[in-house]
Amino acid sequence: MLKVKVYADRMSQPSRAVLIFCKVNGIEFDEIKVEISKRQQLSPEFAAINPFKKLPAIVDGRFKLFESHAILIYLASAFPGIADHWYPADLSRRARIHSVLDWHHLNLRHGAAPFVLHSVLAPVLGLPLNPKAAAEAEKILISSLLKLENIWLKGNGRYLLGNLQPSIADLSLVCEIMQLELLDEKDRERILGPHKKVQEWIESTRNATRPHFDEVHKVLYKVKEIIQAKQSNQGDGVMQSKTKSPLPSKM
Amino acid sequence: MLKVKVYADRMSQPSRAVLIFCKVNGIEFDEIKVEISKRQQLSPEFAAINPFKKLPAIVDGRFKLFESHAILIYLASAFPGIADHWYPADLSRRARIHSVLDWHHLNLRHGAAPFVLHSVLAPVLGLPLNPKAAAEAEKILISSLLKLENIWLKGNGRYLLGNLQPSIADLSLVCEIMQLELLDEKDRERILGPHKKVQEWIESTRNATRPHFDEVHKVLYKVKEIIQAKQSNQGDGVMQSKTKSPLPSKM
Repeated sequence: MLKVKVYADRMSQPSRAVLIFCKVNGIEFDEIKVEISKRQQLSPEFAAINPFKKLPAIVDGRFKLFESHAILIYLASAFPGIADHWYPADLSRRARIHSVLDWHHLNLRHGAAPFVLHSVLAPVLGLPLNPKAAAEAEKILISSLLKLENIWLKGNGRYLLGNLQPSIADLSLVCEIMQLELLDEKDRERILGPHKKVQEWIESTRNATRPHFDEVHKVLYKVKEIIQAKQSNQGDGVMQSKTKSPLPSKM
Repeated sequence: MLKVKVYADRMSQPSRAVLIFCKVNGIEFDEIKVEISKRQQLSPEFAAINPFKKLPAIVDGRFKLFESHAILIYLASAFPGIADHWYPADLSRRARIHSVLDWHHLNLRHGAAPFVLHSVLAPVLGLPLNPKAAAEAEKILISSLLKLENIWLKGNGRYLLGNLQPSIADLSLVCEIMQLELLDEKDRERILGPHKKVQEWIESTRNATRPHFDEVHKVLYKVKEIIQAKQSNQGDGVMQSKTKSPLPSKM
């Protein structure tokens, strides 16, 4: 059987969600690394797969697809033997998962991704930090975490929507939040600390997808070391507003 | 049969997409007006339907659902006799529609909605105009229109993805763009003028969903008159950065 090709960079949270989903569900695939830090997603070869030049993307036979939520839904639907809880056949349960996924793109993602980029990750990509943009994104992030805690994780189940088992929405949103591992401990605790249900839910999702969850997230801890090394080289480090010259990536 | 309840404000573009979809497909429903200009979506009654206090939302029997893309998918799946082209059963065609819908939320919507709000609509809602936020949003809007023109509308079909008939994605994205009708002619021409395929696609979608498309969009032209009256009352008008006191809505 022809394997699915998954174009991914493990530093991209939607890439991680797709990789973990494939591994947990025994989908045979080839992981094709496209390194954002080397701008490889901008190559003409990759643009032929995804004209928007974003990760992840998949190729299944002649079929090309991008946008991680669309990919997760497609994989859960097209491959046999995937447990129903990931993407239920029941229309109303499925609809509620779509509503979480839509909320993710309109809220959480607009907080988490720019916050991490502008507060710690930028120098690894050769860009300056931007404390003002980080502060804006932090507001959206914190408001989204509050809504996760008080609305989406309301109910008795361990997962979103009160579910007893994880769906593609749990995986997608937890991978988004996992990028907060790049922050220093104090910042991470300030942001995630008040949200006990969110923390428990991350642990539940991690446990349900072990060992793949930890393996795919390893890269974050490697990059965190690079960030910390850069910060200690630069003295005060944490929130410098101007980096004089772009730093080359060491990834 | 118990009718679906659709909670909507026709001034909200995702509300319009859901209303038009129901009407075109003969879904029996009750339209329950929730007026954003009167902050009715913030009422405890509506929060019991959608805890995020956003429009649209539906109630089908005991099932409550919000997020317009999730609603469109649910309606297209749950009601009998809806033509396949709206939300194809074929997994890869369906997946590509999901990818357009995801792109909409991550791109076009983040340009169009804040641009119209901050450049013309705010005073109708009792808020000041914000030319700086409008300029930021305009960049995202123009980049999104370029991608619609050159990527999503590539191909020979009249609709997104080269399709010969409209899908829920065409309806959702066209309703988003239709809010540009609130701009004055010069601004609308500057933004939409260069995108011939986008203009033809709006016309095709309008034609495919007549007369409901025009009927549901009527409110825009009514509000445009209010905006123009306010502008001429205030002299120079078009891009005032500060409105001294919030203006009450006349909607």
